[in-house]
Amino acid sequence: MGMIGGGRDAFIGSIHRLAANMDGLIELSCGALSSNPEIALLSAKDLFLPESRSYINYEKMIVAEAALPSDIKIDFITIVTPNFAHFAPAMMALEYGFNVVIEKPMTFSLEEAKQLQQKVIETGLILCLTYTYSGYPMVKQAKAMLNQGKLGKIRKVWVEYPQGWLSTLSEKEGNVQAAWRTDPSKSGKSSVMGDIGTHAAHLAEYITGSKITDVCAELNTIVEGRAMDDDGAVLLKFDNGSKGVLMASQVAAGEENALKIRIYGEKGGIEWLQHEPNTLVVKWFNEPTQILRAGSNYAYLSSFATHNCRTPGGHPEGYIEAFANIYRNFALTLNCSLDGRKPTPEMLDFPTVEDGIRGMAFIDTVVASSKSEKKWTTFNL
Amino acid sequence: MGMIGGGRDAFIGSIHRLAANMDGLIELSCGALSSNPEIALLSAKDLFLPESRSYINYEKMIVAEAALPSDIKIDFITIVTPNFAHFAPAMMALEYGFNVVIEKPMTFSLEEAKQLQQKVIETGLILCLTYTYSGYPMVKQAKAMLNQGKLGKIRKVWVEYPQGWLSTLSEKEGNVQAAWRTDPSKSGKSSVMGDIGTHAAHLAEYITGSKITDVCAELNTIVEGRAMDDDGAVLLKFDNGSKGVLMASQVAAGEENALKIRIYGEKGGIEWLQHEPNTLVVKWFNEPTQILRAGSNYAYLSSFATHNCRTPGGHPEGYIEAFANIYRNFALTLNCSLDGRKPTPEMLDFPTVEDGIRGMAFIDTVVASSKSEKKWTTFNL
Amino acid sequence: MGMIGGGRDAFIGSIHRLAANMDGLIELSCGALSSNPEIALLSAKDLFLPESRSYINYEKMIVAEAALPSDIKIDFITIVTPNFAHFAPAMMALEYGFNVVIEKPMTFSLEEAKQLQQKVIETGLILCLTYTYSGYPMVKQAKAMLNQGKLGKIRKVWVEYPQGWLSTLSEKEGNVQAAWRTDPSKSGKSSVMGDIGTHAAHLAEYITGSKITDVCAELNTIVEGRAMDDDGAVLLKFDNGSKGVLMASQVAAGEENALKIRIYGEKGGIEWLQHEPNTLVVKWFNEPTQILRAGSNYAYLSSFATHNCRTPGGHPEGYIEAFANIYRNFALTLNCSLDGRKPTPEMLDFPTVEDGIRGMAFIDTVVASSKSEKKWTTFNL
Amino acid sequence: MGMIGGGRDAFIGSIHRLAANMDGLIELSCGALSSNPEIALLSAKDLFLPESRSYINYEKMIVAEAALPSDIKIDFITIVTPNFAHFAPAMMALEYGFNVVIEKPMTFSLEEAKQLQQKVIETGLILCLTYTYSGYPMVKQAKAMLNQGKLGKIRKVWVEYPQGWLSTLSEKEGNVQAAWRTDPSKSGKSSVMGDIGTHAAHLAEYITGSKITDVCAELNTIVEGRAMDDDGAVLLKFDNGSKGVLMASQVAAGEENALKIRIYGEKGGIEWLQHEPNTLVVKWFNEPTQILRAGSNYAYLSSFATHNCRTPGGHPEGYIEAFANIYRNFALTLNCSLDGRKPTPEMLDFPTVEDGIRGMAFIDTVVASSKSEKKWTTFNL
Repeated sequence: MGMIGGGRDAFIGSIHRLAANMDGLIELSCGALSSNPEIALLSAKDLFLPESRSYINYEKMIVAEAALPSDIKIDFITIVTPNFAHFAPAMMALEYGFNVVIEKPMTFSLEEAKQLQQKVIETGLILCLTYTYSGYPMVKQAKAMLNQGKLGKIRKVWVEYPQGWLSTLSEKEGNVQAAWRTDPSKSGKSSVMGDIGTHAAHLAEYITGSKITDVCAELNTIVEGRAMDDDGAVLLKFDNGSKGVLMASQVAAGEENALKIRIYGEKGGIEWLQHEPNTLVVKWFNEPTQILRAGSNYAYLSSFATHNCRTPGGHPEGYIEAFANIYRNFALTLNCSLDGRKPTPEMLDFPTVEDGIRGMAFIDTVVASSKSEKKWTTFNL
Repeated sequence: MGMIGGGRDAFIGSIHRLAANMDGLIELSCGALSSNPEIALLSAKDLFLPESRSYINYEKMIVAEAALPSDIKIDFITIVTPNFAHFAPAMMALEYGFNVVIEKPMTFSLEEAKQLQQKVIETGLILCLTYTYSGYPMVKQAKAMLNQGKLGKIRKVWVEYPQGWLSTLSEKEGNVQAAWRTDPSKSGKSSVMGDIGTHAAHLAEYITGSKITDVCAELNTIVEGRAMDDDGAVLLKFDNGSKGVLMASQVAAGEENALKIRIYGEKGGIEWLQHEPNTLVVKWFNEPTQILRAGSNYAYLSSFATHNCRTPGGHPEGYIEAFANIYRNFALTLNCSLDGRKPTPEMLDFPTVEDGIRGMAFIDTVVASSKSEKKWTTFNL
Repeated sequence: MGMIGGGRDAFIGSIHRLAANMDGLIELSCGALSSNPEIALLSAKDLFLPESRSYINYEKMIVAEAALPSDIKIDFITIVTPNFAHFAPAMMALEYGFNVVIEKPMTFSLEEAKQLQQKVIETGLILCLTYTYSGYPMVKQAKAMLNQGKLGKIRKVWVEYPQGWLSTLSEKEGNVQAAWRTDPSKSGKSSVMGDIGTHAAHLAEYITGSKITDVCAELNTIVEGRAMDDDGAVLLKFDNGSKGVLMASQVAAGEENALKIRIYGEKGGIEWLQHEPNTLVVKWFNEPTQILRAGSNYAYLSSFATHNCRTPGGHPEGYIEAFANIYRNFALTLNCSLDGRKPTPEMLDFPTVEDGIRGMAFIDTVVASSKSEKKWTTFNL
Repeated sequence: MGMIGGGRDAFIGSIHRLAANMDGLIELSCGALSSNPEIALLSAKDLFLPESRSYINYEKMIVAEAALPSDIKIDFITIVTPNFAHFAPAMMALEYGFNVVIEKPMTFSLEEAKQLQQKVIETGLILCLTYTYSGYPMVKQAKAMLNQGKLGKIRKVWVEYPQGWLSTLSEKEGNVQAAWRTDPSKSGKSSVMGDIGTHAAHLAEYITGSKITDVCAELNTIVEGRAMDDDGAVLLKFDNGSKGVLMASQVAAGEENALKIRIYGEKGGIEWLQHEPNTLVVKWFNEPTQILRAGSNYAYLSSFATHNCRTPGGHPEGYIEAFANIYRNFALTLNCSLDGRKPTPEMLDFPTVEDGIRGMAFIDTVVASSKSEKKWTTFNL
């Protein structure tokens, strides 16, 4: 693995490394870890990268690594830069024959996303997108249960994502993470929908297996002086006829990262909260609620859930393990691809360029709806 | 107290009696307990009412009771009939000089509500409306904290009310409660908003002290064959500039009565769930979350909360006590009124005709918005 | 109902009145509400008792009431004085032909308890003891499930009762409740075991249907200057071969009234916490945990549970309702007895003199064990 | 890192590898992964170990690795065999100059533990013991708060460890993990206390900073046909004058791994449950309960907590991260030691041979107490 971005002071880069390290399948071999060449090299040193594979920018890294012998050459490149700096390195990496992992949202604009999709199709390479929350075993369990019709016909989706970290104008007080996320030139069309709304929308589509067809959105800039939206709510229609509500806020003061989804069908409902990710609450009409737990009650868990558990029930796995599940499934699929084997459905269960492009279209559609006086705006891809 | 409605097989009438009994301030003295004269008399017998004060219809009761000497005569009449049968007995009771307690929603239509308001003003009598959930001490605590500015400027309100009991077409299978609530001739313009949405809207306005000014609503009839809506979502604007989302469903299969409200301000947020009503979660920006508990930590509780607690912390009070708080405050206010004393602000803290009229206007506005292709509809009173 | 004790400043007396009022089956008709004659009369006035039936002491009340015509005379007397003042009025009430309700622990000493039992047997009257927590519907559900063998053979009982209210030497600072409870001349042999340990022991025996046979106890006086114990732990053996642990503390600073019981059998375990009394968690070996809820899932609930529910699921009932269940079952049984009907098993399900005597023996045995250097002390009755 | 044990079908070995991998500080370089030479080699292959460093037994590994040049040679050896096979490889590793990580309990007997301690002292090498649960940041936070006197004088410790996985005689049905843990020749004097009781005792001593001085224990073999105990309860005295209760069971059917500790002091109490490890509940006398969260509210967290967090609040870390914290602190300390730097107190905060020896003495004392008819048995080291 080579990494672009993720140097000192970055947040998500270190998570990617923890996740990639975990299962002993992936080794960080090279990096262009910052747009500042000096920081790039210092960061590489922090991570014990050899000087010869510590690069001052991604262009040099891709060119140099592509020229290495195949037994040394990296198999894929991970891109963990801010949103505006995903597209160029991703395109170049694919052109030079590298598979790619990208932090979400996939690109800065829907147009870029479409070009990237085209390139993936052309090259036949794998693009993995780290919609982290779909890596949790109990999210996969929920998807499997809905897919098997356990809840009957799906009727209603409620997904919410309250965060509070942007409750003050911290982007003006030196918070680097806040600064680029609230800068329209770096973040994209929407801060709240790009940063967290896409996670929520992906989770809803992933678990239900349905697609959003229409939205009615309202976006707000709640903190005075902020250059972008930081809060929003969206009414949803899905292609299976169900309805939904998506709520996302970066200014829900006092909240951490409380992504939660509830889905109701004819026979019951599921509830999953990211803060307690090893628990899936299954509510039944006229029957007692059941608590399904990762690593326990194996007879009740789908192979898609158990494949993504490392520990027995009661030994909690968390965010890094969910992230690592995406990396592991990507790596297992890649290994199959390299060896000419056929990956299992469980291995193939990671987000790809198709999910990325829907995320970008979701942002576009929500922003358009928010500006519209019409109630409903069609989700266009 | 005299009671209209609430005979055998009724649900809410028995709750009213439990609540009214609790504190030893109110005695059930007479009743016209069913629209069916025979059942009315049998129900009165069940409740040990004297035959002389067991009436076959409300008209007879009001006339007869009004003629009794003042030391025997009831002070007020409670109306617990289905929605369509609130208005006429309420008007007549007021005309005959009786104070009134009415189950929500106050009337069948906004027009009736306005007439009732007019009559209350004319007579100077008290009309108490049983928006139960505002009777909980920790709801009052939330209101007090917001009123004192503890959370800073209010930014966002999320209120949700999932129930699952109408997940099937039970109105066609002999469920009496379901039958009238899903019958437009008895329930009003909206089932889901009349039955539970008004509770949620009232709670939001009560705690924040703000008024809804605009709504963007979507109502659904999810169960096939049902004559009325059973699910809905509403985006909200408030007169203090904050925004909100209200979700209500009677078909969230597996849910009981999970009314929950979260309100976020500049400095933090509050969270209250009716299933665990003695707990108020207070989340702070950059400080630890606090758990306030009814009956405990008196130094932290408002007098509006403590006035409505009967037991020390850890001896849970519930729904009947919340209901009883409304009755007790109404009765205390009524006693003051009869004695010429001035009630305290804590006593006066029960829902009245003003709340009732806003509830009816909320239903009207939401139904209008749901039919509109415009995003926003103004809340008109 | 006549009441002895429970005047101004008393705690449990007002709970008894709330509970007795609730269901409209019981009316407070007379009282000797304080050992201080003046306060007795003022307290009676507070409660709207007629002067003619407001007594300055219990002896006068019992004599006077016994002389009233039977259609006016009370059916039973409730004794809510401190522990040391239970026995004399209870004996006298029984002698004068009144049924009796007593707050736990039943008496000051085991010797008194045995005499009381003898008197109950002689008179054929009913003595009801308010072990409140056995009045909760989900406690009754747990008992029914164990009784039906749902968990298989019982193996282990863990019951705990942490309170924090005596964390400081508040008995020296004017706290009346603390003062008599920590005074050996008023409270009995043990404060912590008398006040709360007996509740825990009763709950364990009630739910399991087994009897404690041996204890290994350790009692502590944790707050310096206190005249009695305020904390303890007890290892238990039961007559069905299972083992248990009972923990009780009045100095668990920060705790409210967190009585909790867990019982494990061959096939699974149950967990019930008094702070969330409408929920019974049922854990199964190798199957998902189930959440049973009062008022919901009626097909899964025992008649002993549903008989004691007033509201549908999600409308929480609490401590006062649990208390009221004891009063209601006692009153229903008493009505049957007065009418010559046979009470149902559900009506008969309230604590009696047998439970009271076991409670007193539990206190004695635990105190003896605590003083012993031997590990196990036999529970002797 | 070299690993002894942990081959195919082992449980804890894979956890050690996940934990060691996570932070990129440790690399698995060699192994003797099974007592079965064939499985040892196959397991090494599974883990991509080079053939030259895949050993058929630990003796060969230690000798061969010790002979390697220092830039290739491993720095430490991890021993993850069953309990009876800890001592010999640990002694040999120390003799050959390797630092050692050992899975708990440290040895088979107290005698072995004392010899190991002696060897550690002689060699000056580091022995790290993986009492996993002390690696959680909120456990460290609890320790820091108690150490700072935030709760005042400590009064009471309740620690419980219910598991249900041994509820049936699975050791006779091919469960390898169950088989050795319930075999006295492999597990030691006590199954329940060796496997989980030591974790609970360590947690209590670690957080309070106090030592157990006396125990009153009762051990049970609940599942018929089992060769060792599987359940127990222990009353505790600590050297700071506080008292405690420790409950551990492997047959609490339906439980996963629900280690929980509550500690009460004069001013309040803390509560930590391993199933939700990122939360520390802090209860205060007469003040609202606070919820401290890993990664959030940094101003409230001790450096010992924050040093062991990898993610911001709301991105849950779990069991593998707690394990990894022990490895990371050990590795950071070892690096300091190799470089001649002084480790920080936060780095040095991992369990060592001293903790291991106390664990073995705890097992011995509890077993002796369980056989004794005396109430209290002195904890002898």
